[in-house]
Amino acid sequence: MTPVQQRAELGDLKVIAFDVFGTVVDWHTGIAAEAERLLPGIDGSAFALAWRAGYQPAMRTVMERIANGEGAFTRLDELHLHILEGVLRDFGATQLDAAKKRALNLAWHRLPAWPDAVAGLSRLKSKYIVCTLSNGNIGLLTEMAKNAGLPWDCVLSAEVFKAYKPDPLTYLGVAAVFDVQPAQVMLAAAHQDDLAAARACGLRSAYIERPHEFGKDRTKDVSPHPDNTLHARDIGALADLLGC
Amino acid sequence: MTPVQQRAELGDLKVIAFDVFGTVVDWHTGIAAEAERLLPGIDGSAFALAWRAGYQPAMRTVMERIANGEGAFTRLDELHLHILEGVLRDFGATQLDAAKKRALNLAWHRLPAWPDAVAGLSRLKSKYIVCTLSNGNIGLLTEMAKNAGLPWDCVLSAEVFKAYKPDPLTYLGVAAVFDVQPAQVMLAAAHQDDLAAARACGLRSAYIERPHEFGKDRTKDVSPHPDNTLHARDIGALADLLGC
Repeated sequence: MTPVQQRAELGDLKVIAFDVFGTVVDWHTGIAAEAERLLPGIDGSAFALAWRAGYQPAMRTVMERIANGEGAFTRLDELHLHILEGVLRDFGATQLDAAKKRALNLAWHRLPAWPDAVAGLSRLKSKYIVCTLSNGNIGLLTEMAKNAGLPWDCVLSAEVFKAYKPDPLTYLGVAAVFDVQPAQVMLAAAHQDDLAAARACGLRSAYIERPHEFGKDRTKDVSPHPDNTLHARDIGALADLLGC
Repeated sequence: MTPVQQRAELGDLKVIAFDVFGTVVDWHTGIAAEAERLLPGIDGSAFALAWRAGYQPAMRTVMERIANGEGAFTRLDELHLHILEGVLRDFGATQLDAAKKRALNLAWHRLPAWPDAVAGLSRLKSKYIVCTLSNGNIGLLTEMAKNAGLPWDCVLSAEVFKAYKPDPLTYLGVAAVFDVQPAQVMLAAAHQDDLAAARACGLRSAYIERPHEFGKDRTKDVSPHPDNTLHARDIGALADLLGC
């Protein structure tokens, strides 16, 4: 499809919901830098990868507990802190007191935006409602936006829907919040599994290439998937495709 | 207290949560104008007052149903539409079809900001997290912010907490979202009952004078209440008091 054909089919699009970690902000660079600052001598990149690797299993555990009636929804800040304890043990970094652990945990609130993010989101806002749809908690996402200058119209989060992506409650929740059909919402993300789950709920999907999400030395496969509605090099390119 | 004394006691303040209808936007003027546009010959001011008068009873009914296990949380857009049906009947305005009723209902998404709101909120944002705490639903508040240029850091709503103000879940919910103590949150509102309920939960309170909330001809008592932390003529004056 040409960009003009793509646009013509999207005339009723109203909301673009963004995945955040990896798609809008560079968690690998941000976490590696803060870990190296607080834990001199540590391999910041390896530390960031280990911390992030605990994220999916932690959310799965919470959702299983909720399904079994054994627990409540938990904010990502709390999950991050729990995962951090294990990562610090694995890295033999036992010198941090509780206050310093909490300070390091807030590194997720201060992640740097990818260079194209602020300008790209600002362009998209002129035509669409532009919000987050992240497993990060509302406070985390709000402080991140303040720090990085991300101009969200609204911060939506797993915390609003009391479920994490890829639970359909999250994708369909965005459509319900804005009283639109699922096809009037587009998820923009750097992760094909997130986009596939959104499409299964009837949302449009836009893949954003972030080849260095896992670091400059670990190039990620960013090849197009034919089922996505759009494929863009970055958020500026997405604004180009949507005529913003 | 002098402004300097007031500021000194507020050194740990982190979040200012704003009531919206009446405090930040002028619902009376906005609804009256849209009603007169869609319903020629109607008394727009009386129509606006009647529509708004249905708001508290409608929320109470929902909360009673939830307490009795007979119903679920309902977005304000839906309550507004239900109240509108009755107001149209009372005004003998039976000519609107369903699509026009829905269009009129969205007048609440397009309310004009009070003249000081955008500049005042922008100043407060430089120092604090500035969010909504409104019984309006997220979609309503987000579209209103886009239309009026309100620069919220984050849109919090009864819809997030599944309870309407003055339920303590809402005031304490703001503190929980940002992982701060209740006293680190200030509610800013033009309504003494809202502020009293916030104080009962341990929040600070700032009264904003809106003498013409109910129209230019119905001046409201805006005298200070000694229990409020701050009293400000408008949002710009609140920014002055807080040294922003």
